[in-house]
Amino acid sequence: MIKIVVDCFGGDHSPEANIEGSLSALDKFKDLSLILTGDESVIKSKLEGKEYDADRLQIVHAPDVIGCDEKPTDAIRLKKESSMIKAIRLLRDEDDIAGMVSVGSTGALVAGALTRIGVLEGVIRPAFCPILPTMNGGIVGICDSGANVEVTAAYLKQFAIMASLYLENVYGIQNPRIALLNVGKEAEKGDSIRQETYRTLSELPCINFVGNMESRDLLSGSYDAVICDGFSGNVLVKTTEGTAVELLLKVKETIFSRTIYKIGALFQKKMFADLKSFMNYQNYGGSVLLGTSKVVVKGHGSSKAVAVEKCIEQAYRMEASSLSEKITAALDKYDHYEG
Amino acid sequence: MIKIVVDCFGGDHSPEANIEGSLSALDKFKDLSLILTGDESVIKSKLEGKEYDADRLQIVHAPDVIGCDEKPTDAIRLKKESSMIKAIRLLRDEDDIAGMVSVGSTGALVAGALTRIGVLEGVIRPAFCPILPTMNGGIVGICDSGANVEVTAAYLKQFAIMASLYLENVYGIQNPRIALLNVGKEAEKGDSIRQETYRTLSELPCINFVGNMESRDLLSGSYDAVICDGFSGNVLVKTTEGTAVELLLKVKETIFSRTIYKIGALFQKKMFADLKSFMNYQNYGGSVLLGTSKVVVKGHGSSKAVAVEKCIEQAYRMEASSLSEKITAALDKYDHYEG
Repeated sequence: MIKIVVDCFGGDHSPEANIEGSLSALDKFKDLSLILTGDESVIKSKLEGKEYDADRLQIVHAPDVIGCDEKPTDAIRLKKESSMIKAIRLLRDEDDIAGMVSVGSTGALVAGALTRIGVLEGVIRPAFCPILPTMNGGIVGICDSGANVEVTAAYLKQFAIMASLYLENVYGIQNPRIALLNVGKEAEKGDSIRQETYRTLSELPCINFVGNMESRDLLSGSYDAVICDGFSGNVLVKTTEGTAVELLLKVKETIFSRTIYKIGALFQKKMFADLKSFMNYQNYGGSVLLGTSKVVVKGHGSSKAVAVEKCIEQAYRMEASSLSEKITAALDKYDHYEG
Repeated sequence: MIKIVVDCFGGDHSPEANIEGSLSALDKFKDLSLILTGDESVIKSKLEGKEYDADRLQIVHAPDVIGCDEKPTDAIRLKKESSMIKAIRLLRDEDDIAGMVSVGSTGALVAGALTRIGVLEGVIRPAFCPILPTMNGGIVGICDSGANVEVTAAYLKQFAIMASLYLENVYGIQNPRIALLNVGKEAEKGDSIRQETYRTLSELPCINFVGNMESRDLLSGSYDAVICDGFSGNVLVKTTEGTAVELLLKVKETIFSRTIYKIGALFQKKMFADLKSFMNYQNYGGSVLLGTSKVVVKGHGSSKAVAVEKCIEQAYRMEASSLSEKITAALDKYDHYEG
């Protein structure tokens, strides 16, 4: 049995989306059991009338909620009765709990995970690794997408090893193609950190390093994961998301500006639905935090039930594939590897 | 008369696009005169049969071309007979030449401009400031988009002052809204450079600083210019471009996958043309280099005639508005301003 704790509050569609997503995950994985944290009476009322295996669902009462605009360090220190901190403490204290899922404040989750959960042996800093869809129907991971605004080449090396293992073990991608985000393809591009990382990754036998990637190629399908500092990774992910959303809005706005376009759109209803579904990040789950000593998955604040279900699935698959053990072993062997 | 030198080679559509763009610009601005550098016989043969004011067009022979994959420092040292280096040397040596336009190697142009042209008094480092279209029909500048992969808060402060003056003087935007690219809206977000820059820009009376911008809001129309280091600026611009291109390809591919979608598209031909034109960076000219002692405009390598014409127009308007003098004066007054 794989046990995961789900923070049921803190998102735009909480707690309904969190609870519904939890029930779907329970239905999908028969060896999964969940603990839901949050206001018990609210959760119980939302569960009423739903069908689920009650033996695999437990509620832990936590009446408080951390808001997205609260200062993370204050929140984790003061809001001990919040659904997120309760989840973090359960994860820390209970040996049989493998991981947690939250769609609440990113800052509080990172701060809480770092101070309460800690990192795997050998890991310098954990890194976020969200997944985006590529244009040929595949996926691409971005590591780090924001946990570390400043990095060194040693961090980036670890991000590459962790992301490669994640893509292989959780998404079944053999020999993932790992690229370094840079301002050009050539080895000497970028700052000294990028140049050093390029050399290090080129010599690392445990990953399939394919060189520098320019950000315009992110969705091309030529890469399985791209390694970057959290600042530019954040820019990469949010720009992709922002441009896609704005562009689809523009298409929609243009269509509704003239009747003849609307007539055209009648023939394409399914197409627009397909495109929207393709660009719908809800379908790709959340951003896992790689390198923490227990599994932590952060869903988008706007997560609906399907996204929460995917986050739980990510946590489940990380645990089922013993990803943490594999990361520890790889870092032990390759972190100080000198070619 | 405003005199500008146009490097006629080095782009995907050179020299035809460069020559055609030059003729359009000459036609548009009657007080503009151009010098074209490149293989004289080739340029002459392309000019044959075209109508233009020969008094305002001069050719300077330069038989060589710098390739995009050549090492910039070698290229500017060894390829003295190339169209780009000839243009740079003319700009340096002739007092009456105000600026230059090139669609060739970015690296060679930056290196050449830095070593041969130099910077305006008070400028630490020049920065690129390309323009992108926003979703509400406006524009947004990104400064720096790649000339400086490493920066300090002092650089970013200068980029903000220069970009603000550029948007105001060349695009007629009154009191441009200047934002700092960051991983969140709050003042304390980002690394120490971003935090310091936030404080500095907040206190600077000569610009309209509106706070941090998250990259997903780049095209929203809420900002006139966003200030960033060249690494993340490069990611920002190329990701926007890449996502837009990939998404429109996806729409096209989806349409051609089913007859019924194609029928719909018949009603929307003009709409797709409008969208394509909207996302067509050719219409927005090139990336100006702010802070060099004479005007330098870098067009995209794939520039067609319309883009080259826009680049020349940018150089023309920079000179016509005395942008350099205004930058020098503003830096003199505000660069060491302490609130």
